[in-house]
Amino acid sequence: MKVIKGSVTAPKSFAAAGVHSGIKKKRKDLALIFSKVPAVAAAVFTTNKVKAAPVLVDKQIIKKGGPVQAVVANSGSANACTGRQGIKDAVETMKFTAALLGIPQDNVFVASTGKIGMPLPLDRIKYGVKLAASIMNESYASGTDAATAIMTTDLARKEIAVETTVSGKKIRIGGIVKGSGMIHPGMATMLCFITSDAVIERRALSSALKQSVGSSFNMITVDGDRSTNDTVLVLANGRAGNKKITSGSPGYGTFCQALEYVCLRLAKAIVKDGEGATKFIEIKIKGAASLSDAKKTAFSIATSCLFKTAMYGSDPNWGRIVSAVGNAPVSMDPEKLKVYINGILVVKNNAPVPGSREKARELLTGKNAVIEVDMQTGKSGCVIWTSDLSTRYVRINAAYN
Amino acid sequence: MKVIKGSVTAPKSFAAAGVHSGIKKKRKDLALIFSKVPAVAAAVFTTNKVKAAPVLVDKQIIKKGGPVQAVVANSGSANACTGRQGIKDAVETMKFTAALLGIPQDNVFVASTGKIGMPLPLDRIKYGVKLAASIMNESYASGTDAATAIMTTDLARKEIAVETTVSGKKIRIGGIVKGSGMIHPGMATMLCFITSDAVIERRALSSALKQSVGSSFNMITVDGDRSTNDTVLVLANGRAGNKKITSGSPGYGTFCQALEYVCLRLAKAIVKDGEGATKFIEIKIKGAASLSDAKKTAFSIATSCLFKTAMYGSDPNWGRIVSAVGNAPVSMDPEKLKVYINGILVVKNNAPVPGSREKARELLTGKNAVIEVDMQTGKSGCVIWTSDLSTRYVRINAAYN
Repeated sequence: MKVIKGSVTAPKSFAAAGVHSGIKKKRKDLALIFSKVPAVAAAVFTTNKVKAAPVLVDKQIIKKGGPVQAVVANSGSANACTGRQGIKDAVETMKFTAALLGIPQDNVFVASTGKIGMPLPLDRIKYGVKLAASIMNESYASGTDAATAIMTTDLARKEIAVETTVSGKKIRIGGIVKGSGMIHPGMATMLCFITSDAVIERRALSSALKQSVGSSFNMITVDGDRSTNDTVLVLANGRAGNKKITSGSPGYGTFCQALEYVCLRLAKAIVKDGEGATKFIEIKIKGAASLSDAKKTAFSIATSCLFKTAMYGSDPNWGRIVSAVGNAPVSMDPEKLKVYINGILVVKNNAPVPGSREKARELLTGKNAVIEVDMQTGKSGCVIWTSDLSTRYVRINAAYN
Repeated sequence: MKVIKGSVTAPKSFAAAGVHSGIKKKRKDLALIFSKVPAVAAAVFTTNKVKAAPVLVDKQIIKKGGPVQAVVANSGSANACTGRQGIKDAVETMKFTAALLGIPQDNVFVASTGKIGMPLPLDRIKYGVKLAASIMNESYASGTDAATAIMTTDLARKEIAVETTVSGKKIRIGGIVKGSGMIHPGMATMLCFITSDAVIERRALSSALKQSVGSSFNMITVDGDRSTNDTVLVLANGRAGNKKITSGSPGYGTFCQALEYVCLRLAKAIVKDGEGATKFIEIKIKGAASLSDAKKTAFSIATSCLFKTAMYGSDPNWGRIVSAVGNAPVSMDPEKLKVYINGILVVKNNAPVPGSREKARELLTGKNAVIEVDMQTGKSGCVIWTSDLSTRYVRINAAYN
């Protein structure tokens, strides 16, 4: 497997465009992704019980088994908490796009991100879809523009593509993502769109996606919340001509590996672009009694405001790590706990390791931090990623309107 | 019941002093509270699995049934994550104080707050205990000094006393507390010491304390964590001469009401003095399916960084409230949800109420905010209190060392 240029249009027979429809004042705000043939689709959605209108209609599409041929995603309005009008607007977007592209209405997947409670400006959406459809086959249209058009408070565009081989055929997977928190301000959402030209059975695609999301997007946190709009969609249009991948076939592992790589790179890109983030933090748990315990412990550290502010201050404050571990709803023995900061053992036998704090402080001045916790009570572990909590995070989220 | 002057020395036969022992550079750092006779004692401790040494030894005292006659509390060092040495130091403090005051070792309750992982400077503790004991009966010694000596990042001293009548006798309850977060930096802790001259059975005192803490200290959050040292202690020395209060006696309700009032006032004082706090926020949940659901929903809002930063920005960002409600692990129906900000209905039928945002924004410019959520799925509710998340909170906790 190798990383290649581009993103959602790297796989065969996908087109994409990102345009300015007028929802935002100046910046691109509408993305269209189109597969020349109907594509097998799988998706995962937010677990928040308050779900945005596009999530509700998309769940129906995926439940019915797809296929999906077009994705319309706008930024600037989340179409969340918009009542019945929100559902109508999402359906109208599907209807309009389907008619324009000559495909069935159910093959259009819609997504929104931006302000909660603001009605979708349907005229601008339609204008944007028309404009995007008219240029998506031109050489200047690109997945990069689509990646730009879904950005909200993101500072960096996030895209990737990889190539691997299944049954002697080259297959590609490309993806774009937006989100600099699992949840945003009035601004909801993480959105991720992944395309592939692989020939793959729907159920295999669905299980590959669940597995990949489990070890990537579900292993990151910026501010600990899930939004009303979070969506990860993967489309596979079968144009690579490989032998069909099923969950039992030899190509399945290869495909999963590539998909997981794409998800992981995009997930880490979100953390690096976390609102106000100055540090990229990896939290490794080992010696936990179960995977579930390991995850709870890792997230207890990653969501602790005190841990995150210490990281912002480049302070090897292991007391806050130990306290966060003790607060996780899992069984643990403080006497057995070992904590490493950037490789330096700072706590063992429930007491500090002499001289370790100074060493750890030196190593914490950079942009990366690795926190390792060995619970010594079992054999399970996990790795998650998070960012620090800075004064800029507070300013971004206090000033937003 | 009426509020009176003073705090832990307002009830009969209690003395207290706060002195500078030298743990901190300049400020008072050691408090001594003494009852002229052994007092019935009840206490609640942190649920964090990593417990500081003083918490471990105090739990034994309370388990054995008390009594307690002296409390030694220091700030500057939490005596947490200090291994076996920490336990030895806590026990040595008890031993030294007991010998000095001529009371049994088990009647000395110890508490620490400050840096985690720093050994207790025993010489300074002993010097401080000696100094405090030598002055505690002087007219210039006071509960106010004790309240000052336990402060860490607290900006305000927090104390209160009340007087009520049980079986024709005046009884008093006084309390001091420290803590500007449920957990602090390397700085651990919330500590609360309450005294009373009531005659009360130990089991009744214990159940009164549990009930009072449940509706006060357990209903506040600044940054969502529990520290390694959190302790609430109540002592009753029986000097008021009332008819003994038992859980069935007529005076029990009166005592509970007064104790709950003291706890609630001190709990709210902690939130008002929350690190970096600019707003005092009350969150009321009603219409929940159970009390447990109501609490989970309230704390999901109160611990959301996005909600707290919006409050800091005086932004009536109800989208963040609705999203936090949807993230709570309880059953809810977005269609039924009603949200009020300072009395203004801002969301119903899963959509914003036109014009409400502007009205709510005007009312949010002050120092107080009341968020009311009606889930309309049941008959339970609760009220909790929290503060906002400001750039100053981040600076305090990033710069701390």
